[in-house]
Amino acid sequence: MRQQHFLMPTLREVPADAETASHRLLLRGGYIRQLAAGVYTYLPLGQRVLRNLERIIREEMDAIGAQELLMPAMQPAPLWEQSGRYAVYGPELIRLEDRHGREFALGPTHEEVVTALIRDEIQSYRKLPLLVYQIQTKFRDERRPRFGLLRGREFLMKDAYSFAADEEQLDAIYASMTQAYNRIFTRCGLRFRAVEADSGSIGGEGGSHEFMAIADIGEDRIVTCTDCGYAANVEQADTGLPQQEKRETPEPAAEKFATPGIHTIAELEQALGVSSKQLLKTLIYEADGRAVAVLVRGDRSVNEIRLQRILHAEQIELADADTVLRLTGCPIGFVGPAGLRMPLLVDREAAAVSSAIAGSGEAGYHLRHVQPGRDFPVEHVYDLRLAAEGDRCPRCEGTLRSSRGIEVGHVFKLGTRYSAKLGASFAGASGEQRPMIMGCYGIGVSRLVSVIAEQRHEETGLLWPMAVAPFQVHVIPVSVQDEEQMLGAEALYRRLRAQGIEALLDDRQERPGMKFKDADLIGAPIRIVFGRKASEGLVEYKERQEANSLEVTVEEAYERIVRLCLN
Amino acid sequence: MRQQHFLMPTLREVPADAETASHRLLLRGGYIRQLAAGVYTYLPLGQRVLRNLERIIREEMDAIGAQELLMPAMQPAPLWEQSGRYAVYGPELIRLEDRHGREFALGPTHEEVVTALIRDEIQSYRKLPLLVYQIQTKFRDERRPRFGLLRGREFLMKDAYSFAADEEQLDAIYASMTQAYNRIFTRCGLRFRAVEADSGSIGGEGGSHEFMAIADIGEDRIVTCTDCGYAANVEQADTGLPQQEKRETPEPAAEKFATPGIHTIAELEQALGVSSKQLLKTLIYEADGRAVAVLVRGDRSVNEIRLQRILHAEQIELADADTVLRLTGCPIGFVGPAGLRMPLLVDREAAAVSSAIAGSGEAGYHLRHVQPGRDFPVEHVYDLRLAAEGDRCPRCEGTLRSSRGIEVGHVFKLGTRYSAKLGASFAGASGEQRPMIMGCYGIGVSRLVSVIAEQRHEETGLLWPMAVAPFQVHVIPVSVQDEEQMLGAEALYRRLRAQGIEALLDDRQERPGMKFKDADLIGAPIRIVFGRKASEGLVEYKERQEANSLEVTVEEAYERIVRLCLN
Repeated sequence: MRQQHFLMPTLREVPADAETASHRLLLRGGYIRQLAAGVYTYLPLGQRVLRNLERIIREEMDAIGAQELLMPAMQPAPLWEQSGRYAVYGPELIRLEDRHGREFALGPTHEEVVTALIRDEIQSYRKLPLLVYQIQTKFRDERRPRFGLLRGREFLMKDAYSFAADEEQLDAIYASMTQAYNRIFTRCGLRFRAVEADSGSIGGEGGSHEFMAIADIGEDRIVTCTDCGYAANVEQADTGLPQQEKRETPEPAAEKFATPGIHTIAELEQALGVSSKQLLKTLIYEADGRAVAVLVRGDRSVNEIRLQRILHAEQIELADADTVLRLTGCPIGFVGPAGLRMPLLVDREAAAVSSAIAGSGEAGYHLRHVQPGRDFPVEHVYDLRLAAEGDRCPRCEGTLRSSRGIEVGHVFKLGTRYSAKLGASFAGASGEQRPMIMGCYGIGVSRLVSVIAEQRHEETGLLWPMAVAPFQVHVIPVSVQDEEQMLGAEALYRRLRAQGIEALLDDRQERPGMKFKDADLIGAPIRIVFGRKASEGLVEYKERQEANSLEVTVEEAYERIVRLCLN
Repeated sequence: MRQQHFLMPTLREVPADAETASHRLLLRGGYIRQLAAGVYTYLPLGQRVLRNLERIIREEMDAIGAQELLMPAMQPAPLWEQSGRYAVYGPELIRLEDRHGREFALGPTHEEVVTALIRDEIQSYRKLPLLVYQIQTKFRDERRPRFGLLRGREFLMKDAYSFAADEEQLDAIYASMTQAYNRIFTRCGLRFRAVEADSGSIGGEGGSHEFMAIADIGEDRIVTCTDCGYAANVEQADTGLPQQEKRETPEPAAEKFATPGIHTIAELEQALGVSSKQLLKTLIYEADGRAVAVLVRGDRSVNEIRLQRILHAEQIELADADTVLRLTGCPIGFVGPAGLRMPLLVDREAAAVSSAIAGSGEAGYHLRHVQPGRDFPVEHVYDLRLAAEGDRCPRCEGTLRSSRGIEVGHVFKLGTRYSAKLGASFAGASGEQRPMIMGCYGIGVSRLVSVIAEQRHEETGLLWPMAVAPFQVHVIPVSVQDEEQMLGAEALYRRLRAQGIEALLDDRQERPGMKFKDADLIGAPIRIVFGRKASEGLVEYKERQEANSLEVTVEEAYERIVRLCLN
């Protein structure tokens, strides 16, 4: 491609509303433009990256026998009513009516459509297992679209669905899909981890893994063991069994003391000069409208996903100040585990402390020498806290490290949740009807663009891996008026293209500084500069990730390029 | 691909609601399935055809320097208000509100989005001309979706947009796009004609051509000259200048005669035993609420598109019976050209008759010996009729033939309609601001699947051209239990795939008749059957479009395949 007429509007200024490096650089490099919140146009550079990602994904899907199809975005509401998701999906589901008043959803995912399709087309175990996928535009009306392509309202996904006759078939597909995902993200040049995950609102009975790209801006917290291979979403991680604290002497009776004006754990910690580990937090939740109290140590956070599962609740929410006052007769900050008129769920670790400071249930006072079991009931004990940095690994003697990640892929064992509701059954070998056992497998294709950019950039621009880069080679004559530079650059450009290597020729009449700045922003893996020594047949060869460039002959540059690109 | 686990559900029965051959065969062959009216899932076979079409289109677009980008389906309503289309687009435009109550349209086309994009990114003539395209899903809530993929509500389009600094640049792009379209449709194996077209509601000042695939089920009528290259949409075609009829003797005075119970031209023709060419039809239209009368010969139809243009009307409509009675005091069927209290537009040909029969303006009576100019005013004369089979060509002495066509592509000179409204201007060489001159260029990608199927099929199945076929070769062992047949078929299948030839292996344990019926339906261009003589190294080689098969060695079959496929 020749740059002079290529739509690649780079920006010198840093866009004010772009909070992350990937968002800033994709805007500045002329990869994307926002049309509305969470709705983007992919400019030619961005589209080239997208298409490279699609190619990688297609190759790996085809390699494991997945069949590509294409389902519509417009999905009739009755299908969603059959699965039960139409009522509960909430405002993220974009709904519309056609000219006849029939309701549709714009698909955020395709379980309903694909299950109904396969139900109608496959009747016998002989046609199972079946694995289909599509690369298709999804819609989700996010409450807070952000970070460019990371959380958009219209985005490109690869979603795959498997249909199996038994668990063994499902397990085999799940395993080969997991391997395919490992290959895909490796080819994308990502640092990532597959972690055990909660199966979330999409439901399902079996396993679920998330593929997390490691990044500080990630909204997910994951823990990984330093010793064994254990890795999990923090909400999925079990915490190690705590040791029961022991005391030599019996604990004195609980004692009320004044703590006026103190409302938070941090304030309490500071005022009393104690560690938050000695404090107990009593939190009031509303689970589908029903109040429950949760007790965790002062230094811990509640694992709300797990709490929700324990309570079998559709929705849980921390009660607001007014509700707490109404339910406990006490303002937030002073609520304690004793004397509550609601169930109290106690975290294992909180149950294991021997002496603690806790709310008294009376405004302006706390209690010290509080002992679980003696001073409040310990009837419902669960693993209720979020795993944290430094925890013991639940699988071995190692220690957990905590990091942030961005979900780029997800594999799910759905079981029969959808097939049962939509009637997707098949005849087994002896003729009996059984529901198909499903799995679903997603990759956020447009999100990947941002994630790769987030992991691979420097201040001046992007550092695309070869397989993903919009152009593999950037050929830059310093001065297009210099005939030898221009002829040499043209010749190399044509030669590379003839080899199927994607090259970009900067044929613009711009200052050299501008050309190099743009080249940095775009981030092609190899840059060839035709400068003063072009007349001697010498060019500057630079790999984007190397600090220094080499002065080499055009022929050597060509050979190096071919070696790197044609593998 | 191995057929045993390939999702290719063929149907034995002919689907009841499929009116066209292409629709029936795409359903029966397992190419598509309907999810809702005008909303389809592409099964793996259909998706393969789509992707082949996309590849052809991309190659030809890239060859003329078009740059691929990708714009969103969700388009903010304010953009459409700026162009003035939000109010007038009507119920075909799918509208929705996001969770914050902001209105969006689901793009049926992208003029607004692309014009706003280029407005913001291009400021100078030095960056012009620019040609961008996308292959993207469009939404249009058709009143009557029909014929499978021919008129859908969610469909795949290639839409391209050009931005030029002057007419010369636009003309050059328009010409190269036209050539690219010719190559694309030729590679798709279509019989088609590029015809002059009206620019329709999308607007525009300059030229417009439609690419029409010839098909009896087409909703468009086109006329083509038998002698010169002239071809036009019937609504765009000029009709030849009529010859003024001459009479030797002066015409007798107009004379009223009774025609009780006669309401139509056909009844009149039959009752009086005259040709409809001797009759004059007076039709009452409402143009934006204003009444006008139109006079054409009894054997002609009004070109309503042209009438609308002449009247500069947003909308025109034939008046209903009540309105006609109210406006003329006379029931439909007896309205005549004399004494009307509204403007009368006379078709050139109607003005050229010397003596005619026409309505009298009084129920139950017609007039004979009616002479234009003498018996009614001939002040507003236009070319107002639709061209028809047998007309003289407006360009030469040839004769027009009429046929039906399906629009598969459209090239438009938009001029400054959108750039002026959305403020997409650029600085010319001397710094002056001018609006960009635009063109737009569409191809219905999913529609092409149906059109090719409509032109290329026989009763038993589809006849895909090599470049489009989902599989190029179908390898069929008659009995999978016969080891020599199966081994031979497997070996050929693998050898073809190693060459990059798309082959389908029928490894199903089915009756031979079933296998051959399915193979006919699917329509791969080449079929290789391993039957009884497989043990002697002989196979049946058959090209789908040939009546007979050949008995050849596997080696010869392979060589023939390579010759046909790898070109």
